[in-house]
Amino acid sequence: MSSSDIFLSETIGTAVLILMGGGVCAAVTFKRSKAFNAGWVAIAFGWGFAVLTGAYIAAKSGAHLNPAVTIGLAIKGAIQWSQVPVYFAGEMLGAMIGAVLVWVVYYGQFRAHLTDPEVLANHTSEEGMVDPTAAPKAGPVLGIFSTGPEIRNVVQNLATEIIATIVLVLAILTLGLSDNGKGVGPIGTLLVALVVTGIGLSLGGPTGYAINPVRDLGPRIVHALLPLPNKGGSDWGYAWIPVVGPLVGGVLAGGIYQLAFA
Amino acid sequence: MSSSDIFLSETIGTAVLILMGGGVCAAVTFKRSKAFNAGWVAIAFGWGFAVLTGAYIAAKSGAHLNPAVTIGLAIKGAIQWSQVPVYFAGEMLGAMIGAVLVWVVYYGQFRAHLTDPEVLANHTSEEGMVDPTAAPKAGPVLGIFSTGPEIRNVVQNLATEIIATIVLVLAILTLGLSDNGKGVGPIGTLLVALVVTGIGLSLGGPTGYAINPVRDLGPRIVHALLPLPNKGGSDWGYAWIPVVGPLVGGVLAGGIYQLAFA
Amino acid sequence: MSSSDIFLSETIGTAVLILMGGGVCAAVTFKRSKAFNAGWVAIAFGWGFAVLTGAYIAAKSGAHLNPAVTIGLAIKGAIQWSQVPVYFAGEMLGAMIGAVLVWVVYYGQFRAHLTDPEVLANHTSEEGMVDPTAAPKAGPVLGIFSTGPEIRNVVQNLATEIIATIVLVLAILTLGLSDNGKGVGPIGTLLVALVVTGIGLSLGGPTGYAINPVRDLGPRIVHALLPLPNKGGSDWGYAWIPVVGPLVGGVLAGGIYQLAFA
Amino acid sequence: MSSSDIFLSETIGTAVLILMGGGVCAAVTFKRSKAFNAGWVAIAFGWGFAVLTGAYIAAKSGAHLNPAVTIGLAIKGAIQWSQVPVYFAGEMLGAMIGAVLVWVVYYGQFRAHLTDPEVLANHTSEEGMVDPTAAPKAGPVLGIFSTGPEIRNVVQNLATEIIATIVLVLAILTLGLSDNGKGVGPIGTLLVALVVTGIGLSLGGPTGYAINPVRDLGPRIVHALLPLPNKGGSDWGYAWIPVVGPLVGGVLAGGIYQLAFA
Repeated sequence: MSSSDIFLSETIGTAVLILMGGGVCAAVTFKRSKAFNAGWVAIAFGWGFAVLTGAYIAAKSGAHLNPAVTIGLAIKGAIQWSQVPVYFAGEMLGAMIGAVLVWVVYYGQFRAHLTDPEVLANHTSEEGMVDPTAAPKAGPVLGIFSTGPEIRNVVQNLATEIIATIVLVLAILTLGLSDNGKGVGPIGTLLVALVVTGIGLSLGGPTGYAINPVRDLGPRIVHALLPLPNKGGSDWGYAWIPVVGPLVGGVLAGGIYQLAFA
Repeated sequence: MSSSDIFLSETIGTAVLILMGGGVCAAVTFKRSKAFNAGWVAIAFGWGFAVLTGAYIAAKSGAHLNPAVTIGLAIKGAIQWSQVPVYFAGEMLGAMIGAVLVWVVYYGQFRAHLTDPEVLANHTSEEGMVDPTAAPKAGPVLGIFSTGPEIRNVVQNLATEIIATIVLVLAILTLGLSDNGKGVGPIGTLLVALVVTGIGLSLGGPTGYAINPVRDLGPRIVHALLPLPNKGGSDWGYAWIPVVGPLVGGVLAGGIYQLAFA
Repeated sequence: MSSSDIFLSETIGTAVLILMGGGVCAAVTFKRSKAFNAGWVAIAFGWGFAVLTGAYIAAKSGAHLNPAVTIGLAIKGAIQWSQVPVYFAGEMLGAMIGAVLVWVVYYGQFRAHLTDPEVLANHTSEEGMVDPTAAPKAGPVLGIFSTGPEIRNVVQNLATEIIATIVLVLAILTLGLSDNGKGVGPIGTLLVALVVTGIGLSLGGPTGYAINPVRDLGPRIVHALLPLPNKGGSDWGYAWIPVVGPLVGGVLAGGIYQLAFA
Repeated sequence: MSSSDIFLSETIGTAVLILMGGGVCAAVTFKRSKAFNAGWVAIAFGWGFAVLTGAYIAAKSGAHLNPAVTIGLAIKGAIQWSQVPVYFAGEMLGAMIGAVLVWVVYYGQFRAHLTDPEVLANHTSEEGMVDPTAAPKAGPVLGIFSTGPEIRNVVQNLATEIIATIVLVLAILTLGLSDNGKGVGPIGTLLVALVVTGIGLSLGGPTGYAINPVRDLGPRIVHALLPLPNKGGSDWGYAWIPVVGPLVGGVLAGGIYQLAFA
């Protein structure tokens, strides 16, 4: 497959992933949304089905949608290392497009929320986001774009993201094994989506499970750029963890796979 | 397949889709229903499994159940343009039959609800439905038949429906791709159902995700015709958006598919 | 397959179906259960996965587990009419065994609940079950065994059960069609389970969706026989509806299938 | 396959199972978790998808992850009895590793919870865990590691675990039947995961459904060893039930399978 085919497919697939994943966060956050307060079960299934949809649409390029997956597959030898930058570029662009689309779909809800005095009183601190005396929270709407920890602890937060990503990538690599190298196929796509739902339910509690560098970084950049009133800071101090953690997790999963299952 | 076979299959399949989709809205709306207040997760899975059931039953005709899907498939070349009106007719008739069946199944609940003074006080405005000073809401029972926006904004509402429909139709078109033209099959049907659940969870917050012209228009006509006391208006001012949005989305998805994945 | 093989397989499969279906009702009903108040989403998925499990275990005999399904398949010609009584007998015996097993699994919870003064004050009327001035409710624990209507109306209740059963049986018959007569198989079993979940979410609100004569009658007999203190009446006045409704629905689904899809 | 391959695969798969299963318990228990209070539906799906993920990753060795499954398969003749100890050893080690990983992922949450005066006041009795005057409860965090009964009754608790395990193992054995001995495969893995979700929803109310000796014993040992402040006792008086019950259930399921379905 040509590089431009890979790029286009990964861009569209990742855009759908982030549109739907960010979308479910918006859906449960905003008071004037029909899914307001639908809870963590909605979030976890919403992200799972976001993976399902994005992965199906991008089946042509193998539907990585995630640099950690791309790295794991490169270590396994399922793709060439020279293709890695093309995948990365499509994934990053797609994640940014998806985040913009969340803003389009929930345009009125963003406006209503960010000018609601009650919301601003509850969430905003002086720097716009972090209140060190309470449980750290994402700013008024940052949580719709990017992840943030419930308890800020570099070692734990990094460990959580690494472990959760190892689970994800290991499952994807062994899926490929079972299908004798033919790619994960429709059933495999469903299984990966439910694995992601499971990771959300089980391992998402502490950090919000980025498990994907572009899923976090792309929308964070969009958050910084979008002209949203009272949006608060983009929490750049935390931003490296959901990038480095998943990349390390992807590498470790590739290694575990080679040692135990290859 | 003969036109009458297509018509019959699409009519029955769409009737089941709307019976079950409208049914879950009724189930969570009515106080005297066992599923009262079961929330948005119930709604999203209910509509997803409504698609699953209707699509399986109508597998003979390809189970479009949705003019946006019919258009997308015609653009892709999977069906002939001369068949399009037959699909449209079956889909529209089925949607109306399904809406009537919701009323039959929840007959006593409609009666109890619409004569409950508490319900009428909370929801009805002078014209029977729209209160422009509060978040716009569907009338006492219109939400069981048709969609309505949380925030009334033509551009946003249209954009939301267009984007959500692009996601749906693009997933269906690429599913066909993966199955080498043999139709989506049992697994594909399941995947489409879960994609619809995901769209509901993620993109349903602002408008209630019609993503299907007949899903909205057919039941709205039935709402206007049924002899329900205190039913309120049918919100015809909004009715064009869930028709035009999904049709535009279907066309755009067909175009994106041809450009990126064909 | 021999009649005794069919009988044994249907008995075990239906016992598992009712054990798990009745079990989820017990799980959300009892205060001293970890799933207390888990809501209608839990109920609907619980019954769906009960079907999945029972159907898989009874795959050898085709896993009808339901006289309405047996009738529908006989009309379609998928089984011989002479086998019908054997299926019925296994299904009925299995349903009764399953109901007894629910009592075993939740033995302490039944005792604690039925001797809790608060529970008895809230639910029991003079005859032990029906309070005609309020929304009719199943007695203190009858709802764990059998279905009951939210609003008691013979015509509506019967119509609801007939329509819901048509949806179920029509889906099963067309599944068989798609699989070219090879039975529904693993994927088909999953789809039927999710169809049942969908019927629960969408059409279960008014009557609790028996959609299966033995699912209701078998456990009702067990309820009448078990030595439970303060258990209330078994509501025999309603008992014919969840038997006749599903049987009529099965026949109608068989007919619709022959007309539209055969 | 070599014994070391089996051992490694079962160890990794069971570690993932317990990491995700214990993880979802942690996720809904801790106040400073994004999934706090997500309820029993989250728990049941969380454990189901934990099985899905662990089973997929350990597909190489057949993914028993559970001595009750190993025994059932040995009775059926699907594995050799000489391999049973290897499976047992991997399963036990994996369960302990998984429990340690839960502690790593939720490190800060464990600390915050176990030093929260409100939590300690509500849950801890003199011996650190059991309050015989109230409904018995697991200690402050023991429920994240191991199961405990809502009502302490040896006969009922044992019966519940036996019956629930029979359902699980019978489903797995008949799945193998349907697939003509080729192992359960990707679809079978999904079905088993949903069967486990169903068992959780339906039969998990009284005891928390161990249905797997190492799932309970391994993490209980880890609970006893970990340096957690105020962690309470490990409830060793109950510990034999979730070991013996599932083993008996696995044997009985093997027997029922041989009698009715072989």
